[in-house]
Amino acid sequence: MTLGIGLLGCGTVGGAFVELLDGQDNLELRQVAVRSTTKPRSAGIGSELLTTDAAAVVSRPDVDIVVEVIGGIEPARSLISAALRAGKPVVTANKELIANCGSELLAEAEEAGVDLLFEAAVAGAIPIVRALRASLSGEHVQRITGIVNGTTNYILTKMTEEGAEYAEALSEAQRLGYAERDPTADVEGFDAGAKVAIMASIAFAANVVAGDVYHEGISNITATDIDFARRLGYQIKLLAIAEQFSDDDGWSVGVRVHPAMVPESHPLASVRDSFNAVFVEGVASGELMFYGRGAGGAPTASAVLGDVLEAAAALERGGHRPITVGRRVPITPIDDLPSAFYVNLEVTDAPGVLAQVAGALGRHAVSIRTMEQHDLHTAARSSNNETARLVFITHASPERNLRATLAAFEELDVVKVVHSVVRVIGS
Amino acid sequence: MTLGIGLLGCGTVGGAFVELLDGQDNLELRQVAVRSTTKPRSAGIGSELLTTDAAAVVSRPDVDIVVEVIGGIEPARSLISAALRAGKPVVTANKELIANCGSELLAEAEEAGVDLLFEAAVAGAIPIVRALRASLSGEHVQRITGIVNGTTNYILTKMTEEGAEYAEALSEAQRLGYAERDPTADVEGFDAGAKVAIMASIAFAANVVAGDVYHEGISNITATDIDFARRLGYQIKLLAIAEQFSDDDGWSVGVRVHPAMVPESHPLASVRDSFNAVFVEGVASGELMFYGRGAGGAPTASAVLGDVLEAAAALERGGHRPITVGRRVPITPIDDLPSAFYVNLEVTDAPGVLAQVAGALGRHAVSIRTMEQHDLHTAARSSNNETARLVFITHASPERNLRATLAAFEELDVVKVVHSVVRVIGS
Repeated sequence: MTLGIGLLGCGTVGGAFVELLDGQDNLELRQVAVRSTTKPRSAGIGSELLTTDAAAVVSRPDVDIVVEVIGGIEPARSLISAALRAGKPVVTANKELIANCGSELLAEAEEAGVDLLFEAAVAGAIPIVRALRASLSGEHVQRITGIVNGTTNYILTKMTEEGAEYAEALSEAQRLGYAERDPTADVEGFDAGAKVAIMASIAFAANVVAGDVYHEGISNITATDIDFARRLGYQIKLLAIAEQFSDDDGWSVGVRVHPAMVPESHPLASVRDSFNAVFVEGVASGELMFYGRGAGGAPTASAVLGDVLEAAAALERGGHRPITVGRRVPITPIDDLPSAFYVNLEVTDAPGVLAQVAGALGRHAVSIRTMEQHDLHTAARSSNNETARLVFITHASPERNLRATLAAFEELDVVKVVHSVVRVIGS
Repeated sequence: MTLGIGLLGCGTVGGAFVELLDGQDNLELRQVAVRSTTKPRSAGIGSELLTTDAAAVVSRPDVDIVVEVIGGIEPARSLISAALRAGKPVVTANKELIANCGSELLAEAEEAGVDLLFEAAVAGAIPIVRALRASLSGEHVQRITGIVNGTTNYILTKMTEEGAEYAEALSEAQRLGYAERDPTADVEGFDAGAKVAIMASIAFAANVVAGDVYHEGISNITATDIDFARRLGYQIKLLAIAEQFSDDDGWSVGVRVHPAMVPESHPLASVRDSFNAVFVEGVASGELMFYGRGAGGAPTASAVLGDVLEAAAALERGGHRPITVGRRVPITPIDDLPSAFYVNLEVTDAPGVLAQVAGALGRHAVSIRTMEQHDLHTAARSSNNETARLVFITHASPERNLRATLAAFEELDVVKVVHSVVRVIGS
């Protein structure tokens, strides 16, 4: 039995997907919706397949499976809804759509009894969606920690390995095509935020949306921070973290994206360049990590093809298996999330200073794990000879305590500058 | 709908699985086949559930899914066959059985139209089987390189990080329960061989069995080898490798287990202690890696539970999806497999020696990538003061060429000792 594929969108991922389809005996490309039918296309896409009428592609009787790689909310959302209502399974690579409207669309798919699959929306070729929904469906997942944005990982790798400053590394990433001309979505963590919302929804069977995610980007990270981190045995990575908390009142979910110091011995520390990885901690499974190409035409198209083959098997043999997304759950605000912190202060070099700093920490219930005081002359940014650099890492405490401590430092004459504050994982 | 589970075997994995079942609303443990009904069991297994009659467990009308964690070929094989013939899906953690009889059993499952699932047979909690059969089912997988034996990885990690010799590290592994009293299956690569046969079968849709796998263990690896490797930027790991080769005559598969030098920058190099990881190279997906706990009760039971939930969904909603294992294919003999090699020679310290060694290499079409000559006094095992240590890494060439070169070295008076020969991956 040959199944017909209708493709919506034909950019990098769509073009690569068409090439992969060529090797599949029982799948046939029936039509491709594009914005322009005159733009030159790669081989394998005959001009007779092209149309600008996406709705017509969805409704063609010989299209059995719809593949959406347009991106963005509309018209993707309406087209996918139309396909599902017509009883056609849909495969999408659209993280923005799934992170914002996934729950509604999955309900429509379940009502129609067909698949809505989106492996390619999270971390490209890495099969993390299927791992969470199938392999780990019986597992109590406690935390997911991902490097799920290749652009920022590339920038941080350059800063780490070549001592480049942020602006320099970003320019290089733009020159190589790893970063967009407007890099905001990547460097401020919005892209990673959409992905972690999707992973949290599946892992915790809760409806978590992009807007629930706390964001902090990498644009404030300096070469000096990275240098300090390395000397202490850490790498700085942009992490997307989803955690489940439960207490007597029920349970809640924390979702956040921010730079963090990762110990060298942690599996995430060795994820370099534009590679992605997702580290999963489960009660029975223990630590798992999934590593690979998080973007790019062929890797993303490979994930799309895996989903298309699953949808095809369900059409042929029956047995569509829904993705469980639960109801809305309370989102733990960032202030309540526990974290360890690295803090780099410039202080007056005089007796009693340490006591004042330690006092402020103690009053806000933040305890110190390690502390170093640095010689004036080697401290990279000391503004004069009467200051010292005080660098410490705290034990985990709710973020609000650390913020209160930083506010208290403002009141201390002996604290000249708070150079940087970076969260630390994996104590 | 509540489905009944019949459990065959109740050792470490079986006991952990019973605990996990407790959290599953629609699964109920109906009976457990054990060797002794009087041996004390962990909480959650009432004595009324125990029986020594495994065949009766399989045939109970209220057992819908059979879970086999006995291990070994018989009686597991007959019991699984009986279950499949009765139309009951089977989940097994039995690598030995699947690596030897997987193809026949999968054919029986397909005939009965039910699932035979075995995620737990390969690398414990790591969902590599599902990744290969579902996510990567449309992918052209070129090579799989795995660290799939925790015992040997633990031993090699101790040797690397503490400078321990093999015998010492093995004793410690035995003391901690990571190695059996008779460690042969682990240290000689038989356990890893069974796992790589299973992975090759799925990834390449070919019937590859344990007996097809070339084995070499780690008992000859010395602390000196590890030290040389580290200085050159490599870690020594026991690798299980499956590769697909194609030429005009068709295609063949190479499957082997042996120690190898892995570059520090390779994702497999940072897999420490008893952790496992599987590195997959596909044409479209690029490089992927799956990392986690490869053994232990809870992690293995977690994989069993994932499969049980898949089997349950297929029973409830229909749509069993078979695992494709193709026919027998030619197995590339180790002599034909291309590899780079590290060679450590003790040679006479005299003019012209290098020319003789290089001549032998050249005559057998082995070219040198890097070479170092070491000072006599620091060479750890130099037997007298007139010898030097010659260490080189070759480019990849068929193994037979390297063997012919080593035979040629035997004929050279200037080559005193061939201290070690270790394959090298990831040039």
